[in-house]
Amino acid sequence: MKQSLFNSLFLKACRGERVPRPPVWLMRQAGRYLPQYRAIRAGVDFLTLCKTPELASRVSLQPVDILGVDAAVIFSDILVLLEAMGLHIHFAKDHGPRIEHPLRSVSDIRRLHPPDIAKDLRYVGEAIRLTSDTLRPRNIPVIGFAGAPFTLACYAIEGETSREFNKTKRFMNEDPKNFALLLAKLADGIALHLQGQIEAGASAVQIFDTWGGILSREDYLLFALPALQRAIDGVRRLGAPVILYVNGSTPHLEAMAETGADVLSVDWRLPLSEVRRRVGRKVALQGNLDPTVLYSNPRVIRQRTRAMFADHPGPGLIANLGHGILPDIPVAHAKAFVKAVQTVQM
Amino acid sequence: MKQSLFNSLFLKACRGERVPRPPVWLMRQAGRYLPQYRAIRAGVDFLTLCKTPELASRVSLQPVDILGVDAAVIFSDILVLLEAMGLHIHFAKDHGPRIEHPLRSVSDIRRLHPPDIAKDLRYVGEAIRLTSDTLRPRNIPVIGFAGAPFTLACYAIEGETSREFNKTKRFMNEDPKNFALLLAKLADGIALHLQGQIEAGASAVQIFDTWGGILSREDYLLFALPALQRAIDGVRRLGAPVILYVNGSTPHLEAMAETGADVLSVDWRLPLSEVRRRVGRKVALQGNLDPTVLYSNPRVIRQRTRAMFADHPGPGLIANLGHGILPDIPVAHAKAFVKAVQTVQM
Repeated sequence: MKQSLFNSLFLKACRGERVPRPPVWLMRQAGRYLPQYRAIRAGVDFLTLCKTPELASRVSLQPVDILGVDAAVIFSDILVLLEAMGLHIHFAKDHGPRIEHPLRSVSDIRRLHPPDIAKDLRYVGEAIRLTSDTLRPRNIPVIGFAGAPFTLACYAIEGETSREFNKTKRFMNEDPKNFALLLAKLADGIALHLQGQIEAGASAVQIFDTWGGILSREDYLLFALPALQRAIDGVRRLGAPVILYVNGSTPHLEAMAETGADVLSVDWRLPLSEVRRRVGRKVALQGNLDPTVLYSNPRVIRQRTRAMFADHPGPGLIANLGHGILPDIPVAHAKAFVKAVQTVQM
Repeated sequence: MKQSLFNSLFLKACRGERVPRPPVWLMRQAGRYLPQYRAIRAGVDFLTLCKTPELASRVSLQPVDILGVDAAVIFSDILVLLEAMGLHIHFAKDHGPRIEHPLRSVSDIRRLHPPDIAKDLRYVGEAIRLTSDTLRPRNIPVIGFAGAPFTLACYAIEGETSREFNKTKRFMNEDPKNFALLLAKLADGIALHLQGQIEAGASAVQIFDTWGGILSREDYLLFALPALQRAIDGVRRLGAPVILYVNGSTPHLEAMAETGADVLSVDWRLPLSEVRRRVGRKVALQGNLDPTVLYSNPRVIRQRTRAMFADHPGPGLIANLGHGILPDIPVAHAKAFVKAVQTVQM
């Protein structure tokens, strides 16, 4: 990594170093709320966009140019890894992704194979290469990502999104041994996927545990945590900071701090000061404005953003939302958030 | 209330008194997992069942006879109150309830009127009267219930169930003053509804805040808490214990303890010992086995139930699940849970 990128606001904050102001980016910042994104999506379906490096790179760059965020996140989807491990995924128009023949038995788990990164996920690396080549002269890092083992297991078992993921938890409760085996297999695939992204030019990687919050603490410690540790162990030697996002993070903060992640990305439910009190100083924090606050007018957005910094005045903070930006947020409101961060007096 | 009922296991535990063993019941215990319930539902639709006191009472009694639980909860739905306040609700066959013309504006809020309990919710009182008449000789109390102001607002604004309730949170963020007004109106309706149920024979009432867990602590304190206090203030003078259930309760435990509720019913995410540490001794606790643990075999169900009591050995505990029992749980597994509680050595 070039010295300048190493000293970018974003990477300094990931390492918990003192910075003049917190860096800012938004989960799902390359997405539907941007007319420029919708213009590109009008011509291609979601999966084609993921798999066409030039287009994926173009939409990844949009929020850097339009909002002026301090990091780009690569446009992709957590499910492309499941596809590269042997599952068939459909992204239909009016509902979310669906998996044909979801995992329901031990023999289904055996069908999963390690991903061939250079072949089956080559397009992700290519998109990262193009994006980081463009952004390196501007000193803006690119973030790669993957789903967490538990969250990928949820999709692989359920076959589609769900509110409670009861099929997954049924599998976990009926056959805990094979559920743990599945998570380990996924963890190894995740490590390979993230390694590939770092080697292609990602300066940091984020692991999304979108559904980790549905577990009891006992099950989180028993199932989710060891698999996360296994995935993170597989990428730490490459030196890129690892960010761990859990939605519904409140019950699991202490455990998240034990995963080996450098940064914990937390939802909006707790004030950052309380999160900090519970996880100590060994990790940086990312978050955590409620994404629905961006429905408010810019004056309220500025107030709430400043209140967030007043509540967590120290270093080791990356400003973000507590979940992805919603598709019907006005761009002006997203800009108001970014600007409020970038003009904050620390 | 007759002296014997006052001294029932369930009501003693609600008051935090020492009992030989914890009482046990299950949220949604009168429901689809029971073949005897499905037999009755085969002949009538959901709303007709709610509105026919003889039938509602019959299904409320089923889990007392079949599982041997220590309390009956009246068969009803939190949305019947919204209907009595002027909204039109459809319970369609293959999806959840839908509200025609959901609330989207201030003039929509003005359409809501106080419920006429004696007229429009008379069937709930009748069902409670029939059920408590049957159970009083057996010394088993009947629990009435209502939705919490925030959760009812979610349905009233969204019009149907949702994962994130973004329309509701959009309303809250765009127009906080009128959102608070809506919650206060709902709180007054809830108080009337619960008063009616207590007067009809309910020995305790539970308020379900199924969606309270999607709020940040700040918004919970600002919106959900004052409305809950207003509803609970309206029923406390009647002397029946008030149980407050929040799904996703972890961020809000301290606030829940400030609502005036006698019992906090919590989800499965935290061990009860930690919940107790955070809320102190002034409330009893209800919960909190992960409902998906009932997919496990009876041996595991017994282990996890005993572990729950080992973790919270003191008085002031009502055994329950952390959320409603799921429709595909084997009856034998529900029985194993009830029996594990009833044979526990405290």
